Amino acid sequence: MRLKDATVSIVGMGLMGGSMGLALEGFCKARVGVVRSAEAAKEAERLGAVDCAVTELASGVAEADLVVLATPVRTILSLIPELGSLMRPGAVLIDLGSTKAEIVAAMERLPDGIAAIGGHPMCGKETSGLQEANADLYRGAIFALVPCSRSTPEAASLARELAQAVGARSLALDAERHDRAVAFVSHLPYLLAAALTHVEAGAAKDDSVLDKLASSGFRDTSRLAASDKNMMLDILLTNRQAVEEALAAFEAEISVVRKLLDAPEDLKEWIERAQGKRRTMFQ
Amino acid sequence: MRLKDATVSIVGMGLMGGSMGLALEGFCKARVGVVRSAEAAKEAERLGAVDCAVTELASGVAEADLVVLATPVRTILSLIPELGSLMRPGAVLIDLGSTKAEIVAAMERLPDGIAAIGGHPMCGKETSGLQEANADLYRGAIFALVPCSRSTPEAASLARELAQAVGARSLALDAERHDRAVAFVSHLPYLLAAALTHVEAGAAKDDSVLDKLASSGFRDTSRLAASDKNMMLDILLTNRQAVEEALAAFEAEISVVRKLLDAPEDLKEWIERAQGKRRTMFQ
Repeated sequence: MRLKDATVSIVGMGLMGGSMGLALEGFCKARVGVVRSAEAAKEAERLGAVDCAVTELASGVAEADLVVLATPVRTILSLIPELGSLMRPGAVLIDLGSTKAEIVAAMERLPDGIAAIGGHPMCGKETSGLQEANADLYRGAIFALVPCSRSTPEAASLARELAQAVGARSLALDAERHDRAVAFVSHLPYLLAAALTHVEAGAAKDDSVLDKLASSGFRDTSRLAASDKNMMLDILLTNRQAVEEALAAFEAEISVVRKLLDAPEDLKEWIERAQGKRRTMFQ
Repeated sequence: MRLKDATVSIVGMGLMGGSMGLALEGFCKARVGVVRSAEAAKEAERLGAVDCAVTELASGVAEADLVVLATPVRTILSLIPELGSLMRPGAVLIDLGSTKAEIVAAMERLPDGIAAIGGHPMCGKETSGLQEANADLYRGAIFALVPCSRSTPEAASLARELAQAVGARSLALDAERHDRAVAFVSHLPYLLAAALTHVEAGAAKDDSVLDKLASSGFRDTSRLAASDKNMMLDILLTNRQAVEEALAAFEAEISVVRKLLDAPEDLKEWIERAQGKRRTMFQ
């Protein structure tokens, strides 16, 4: 099965699912959306995110060659066992969830006929919902593909085609390695952003001028704090061990900084190394 | 003295000084730049950042009605006593430094004839240098004005005119309040960004895939780590007490988060409050 011949069902028409639908136009035989309300179905069709949208999971995935789960992680975890009896044998399941160990473990419990592979496109926005969706969201992004015992060669191939169709670059890695890496480069940044808003809110209680002086630096450092709350809660609850490792490393670094305030030469060197690393990563 | 009749000397033609010069075109009688090399002088004139640029502080400020110090904070601190004997009596001194307590203390030791007021425009970029300067940098920004015993009504009035000319909104507040506020909304975000790059670099030593997976979230949260290193070092060294207060508050918040990973309902509420606060501050 090639993507161009596949009927693709996308479960969840928020920012990620809606953008996936828009980006897939012309790259597959048909796009079906599964949403929660008749109103959302009408809206998804009106925006052209899918060819047709339904509110019932069973009818939405019955004809699918490829099912894409685009909901928060814990919803993905509850949908996978249901899909085992709803998808037709030979169909392929992929998800777009931000943590992978629990998801591929659930995929491995699917019935024999269903192939499955974990997916995680490294893109997003601090906004959410179908209204924010756009066909270019995935363009240029890394699309992690996380295989498991249910990942047939056909499933892996279809997943790579999917990544390519939306303009992303696929990168295969195992679930544990994925989850540790995103704890440091994604979940830790989120927690810093959210903690920063809490700390600022606490200090602003004593002096409202703090809010007035917050400028572009604060805006960007805190941007991720505005992320979808259900998505973030599910991520943190399904990646606890790696998130704790990242938080412990960050706490240790804060202790280092506090000591460096007494050692100007060492502080300067610490500032320089941070600047060098950041400029290497992002030109 | 009104700004339109004033000769304005800008000491330091980096991102902030260069942008100030560009923004002041047409708003004052003449713009003089003081830079470190003949080459930089030629470049400042070529870009139209000033009408004329010189490398000697004495000749650069001799005719000035308003001197604007646009260097890192510790350079400002070393320039202020020098300027006492170089500026003509009746002239006004303002600075653009990011911390204010030490600077206004130095201003208060100036000779009687020199009026002075602290300034801090809440804008910037993670890049630096004259090449990055642009006339719109100050547009829409808050421009903190920090009075001291040397701030005559004329100095305060000229400073407000300067802020308005570059498109900023002036906001008067005292040095201590300013320094505590920026510790939370500016210096803490910088330290989080820099510490994040150090933590990521440490974890990436074990697994180079971390760098590959770092995406827009990491990019924005770490943006301030690329800030000018001399500027940041001077800021941290001249605002230690408030920076330590902010770091201690952040450490306490990280401890809160680590406990919340065991309490999903409370974690959800913490995530929601962060989202609400961030969305209130930046629409």
